[in-house]
Amino acid sequence: MTSRDGFQWTPETGLTQGVPSLGVISPQTNIKDTGSDGPWDVIVIGGGYCGLTATRDLTVAGFKTLLLEARDRIGGRSWSSNIDGYPYEMGGTWVHWHQSHVWREITRYKMHNALSPSFNFSRGVNHFQLRTNPSTSTYMTHEAEDELLRSAVEKFTNVDGNHGRTILPFPHDMFYVPEFRKYDEMSYAQRIEQIQDELSPNERAALESFILLCSCGKLENSSFGEFLHWWAMSGYTYQGCMDCLITYKFTGGQSTFARKFWEEAVGTGKLEYVFGCPVRSVVDDESGNGVRVTARDGREFVAKRVVCTIPLNVLSTIQFSPALSKERISAMQAGHVNMCAKVHAEVDNKDMRSWTGITYPFNKLCYAIGDGTTPAGNTHLVCFGTDANHLQPEEDVQETLKAVGELAPGQFGVKRLVFHNWVKDEFAKGAWFFSRPGLVSECLEGLRERHGGVVFANSDWALGWRSFIDGAIEEGTRAARVLLEELGPKKEVKARL
Amino acid sequence: MTSRDGFQWTPETGLTQGVPSLGVISPQTNIKDTGSDGPWDVIVIGGGYCGLTATRDLTVAGFKTLLLEARDRIGGRSWSSNIDGYPYEMGGTWVHWHQSHVWREITRYKMHNALSPSFNFSRGVNHFQLRTNPSTSTYMTHEAEDELLRSAVEKFTNVDGNHGRTILPFPHDMFYVPEFRKYDEMSYAQRIEQIQDELSPNERAALESFILLCSCGKLENSSFGEFLHWWAMSGYTYQGCMDCLITYKFTGGQSTFARKFWEEAVGTGKLEYVFGCPVRSVVDDESGNGVRVTARDGREFVAKRVVCTIPLNVLSTIQFSPALSKERISAMQAGHVNMCAKVHAEVDNKDMRSWTGITYPFNKLCYAIGDGTTPAGNTHLVCFGTDANHLQPEEDVQETLKAVGELAPGQFGVKRLVFHNWVKDEFAKGAWFFSRPGLVSECLEGLRERHGGVVFANSDWALGWRSFIDGAIEEGTRAARVLLEELGPKKEVKARL
Repeated sequence: MTSRDGFQWTPETGLTQGVPSLGVISPQTNIKDTGSDGPWDVIVIGGGYCGLTATRDLTVAGFKTLLLEARDRIGGRSWSSNIDGYPYEMGGTWVHWHQSHVWREITRYKMHNALSPSFNFSRGVNHFQLRTNPSTSTYMTHEAEDELLRSAVEKFTNVDGNHGRTILPFPHDMFYVPEFRKYDEMSYAQRIEQIQDELSPNERAALESFILLCSCGKLENSSFGEFLHWWAMSGYTYQGCMDCLITYKFTGGQSTFARKFWEEAVGTGKLEYVFGCPVRSVVDDESGNGVRVTARDGREFVAKRVVCTIPLNVLSTIQFSPALSKERISAMQAGHVNMCAKVHAEVDNKDMRSWTGITYPFNKLCYAIGDGTTPAGNTHLVCFGTDANHLQPEEDVQETLKAVGELAPGQFGVKRLVFHNWVKDEFAKGAWFFSRPGLVSECLEGLRERHGGVVFANSDWALGWRSFIDGAIEEGTRAARVLLEELGPKKEVKARL
Repeated sequence: MTSRDGFQWTPETGLTQGVPSLGVISPQTNIKDTGSDGPWDVIVIGGGYCGLTATRDLTVAGFKTLLLEARDRIGGRSWSSNIDGYPYEMGGTWVHWHQSHVWREITRYKMHNALSPSFNFSRGVNHFQLRTNPSTSTYMTHEAEDELLRSAVEKFTNVDGNHGRTILPFPHDMFYVPEFRKYDEMSYAQRIEQIQDELSPNERAALESFILLCSCGKLENSSFGEFLHWWAMSGYTYQGCMDCLITYKFTGGQSTFARKFWEEAVGTGKLEYVFGCPVRSVVDDESGNGVRVTARDGREFVAKRVVCTIPLNVLSTIQFSPALSKERISAMQAGHVNMCAKVHAEVDNKDMRSWTGITYPFNKLCYAIGDGTTPAGNTHLVCFGTDANHLQPEEDVQETLKAVGELAPGQFGVKRLVFHNWVKDEFAKGAWFFSRPGLVSECLEGLRERHGGVVFANSDWALGWRSFIDGAIEEGTRAARVLLEELGPKKEVKARL
């Protein structure tokens, strides 16, 4: 099936919109006659991992659940396109056994042996290529690359002489040490200013590229504390970051994983769904008659409760009644800063499989790695650009091709581009969450608060791997648990204990 | 409530059996009239974390479930005794956000801020004390302690020049690199022989004490591959091991966590249970009439399926019909090697809070740390002994007190001992699973196999954090998922997709 999402370019076809994905659901609904199947126990808005998890948990527990999704597919900001049987990850990709929620599901769905490493350092172009200006390249072994980045990132994170362990001992409880707030309020740029004299020019370029790869914002609008939070979640080491952030992916693509949740939920017989159904408003009139969700096309759906999994940057497109809290509105208005451009390039040099590169700051793609070998035997490179030097990949393909070529000039020809422009996606308005300075300390609690019959759940305000697939599952799990408690069987706990 | 399990000694009371715990369930059953409430969908045998998880998942999904537990309490090999409001961990203790299954539950039960670090390096006796013979002590800073152990453990684990990452890239898929088998078949002693020339005497003593702390067996009967598996799960670093194995514990004790599973399961109204009910036999006559579980007292219970969570070393005490597979019998006969003696000592030197020590090989307790401050202001030390120099702590309390005293001679008086002798516990016959050389490669698959209407589930044969609370939850999750699929609503997946 082909999704409306995503773009592909080849020299033969030029740019085309829409790419094939296992995540497309067909038919798009199992409701025969609008409204006739309601009311529901719960309406889940959004079929990303958060909504899928909530839907799965609720339907398994026997609740009559309706899933409304604006797109034609499951997975939200994490989905894969299968082209000639080869998966390109359009959004969230990597997973690790140190990510508790996603790994629990991977084990539960017996997919622990369905993973492959992105890196493969056994081919010809087996080095790291650092380009800090258009005219030269510095080549290093991957060991030297690790050492360069380890050294730089450790200087960046070592605010307490204990690699962040003292200031952030419990990353799920970020302000356990209240002084952590000051780092949350600090930008990348401010932190770099503190350590600039300790950084060699190469360290500084590699560091900036790496931390911008994480935020995909600008140095001035990315929260240093949010990076420290990723760092702590990863075990306070650069190697831990590499392991958790960019090493292991699903052999068959993310959408093979998302389908497991989907199939389990459908299998309960408790799920109804409508895809291609963006929501216009959510009204809880507090009459006790339930929450009314109105689609853009005018259809109305009513349930006892709603789980709203719409991302932070999109929340303001929905009308809520009663009005949202001040904290939530303030966070929505601020928004997160991630304006990632993620571009896959199939290139005709097989040996680039073992290549990694940083091309910063002059290029519109700043960090890339050899990520696989395509069925045609070409190398698949995955390349990232950030808001610091922004690229809209479909607007001018020649510019995109130029940015890809700048990563390793003269080394390859491009056979194919595949990407999803998250920035112009009306249902995402950016990629994974990354906090502005101060946003988390000011708004995290408010974003997690209950709003009448509506539970807001999204990886954007998860406690642990916020921004990650893991955080989405954390939040979907939380939402379902809250509603299990509220709507579940009357408790006889006291009598029985 | 006071459990029959555990021992306490004070100078005033001497040795007494049975200690208070929040894990004790009262009344011990909610079945009024034997057998009248059956048949059940599922009988879960064993109320440790594995059985609790399976029970919770099954009851939440609406299955009529019966939990049979031999003891008077939940938690199995992980439970805490609250004495004057202070928790002593009698078995499994430490958790970390890199342990996926347990952390998923900690977040789901909102206990991410109910943890405390065991270590507190802010008090007077702030050093590491290494004693390799009865007459001398070597004192080091904790930084030097970490460096000593890091260096030694890295030499031990670095079999591939890549800190184990090459030989064990996917720890949940242990034999992904088939050559890993040779390390699984290798004993600690054999591996030490390979590196003995690289180890200083202090490194060797610290290493042996540390790896024996993990296996609680002997150098000759502990699998080196199993330690490598822990190492890979921990992120292939000594610091990762320390973080995951011995750093974060529940502020209120393990039993506060176990109760969350219990209360959720009871709250569904689908749970019946009988404590103090050891099982004699499990018979699946393959007639399609279900599986019959007979208790030692002769009571019979019948269900469509059984989840048997009895530990490896106890399995042979139950009669199974049809007979168990050759692999399972062979594994049962071999057994695991963990003969841990874990002894808590309340000592009258407040400043010992920041002390750590290794006293090896001459002492019957070889590894200990300051683990807390008791309500009386004394230091709580947690001390471990292994099968390499075995202690049965209740047999001769004077010998136990002597072993505690040898850790730091002249530094304290003992006000209280608290412990559970897992070795003599008929429902455990050892502490957490630790493999003999070759046991995992030969038997892991066989231990995980289905046996007619019976699903065997236990942390002893988990894929990930085998031996840990995490592995117990992994296995309970797996068992419930298998039965959800088998007993769940008829699937309409094909028609609906």
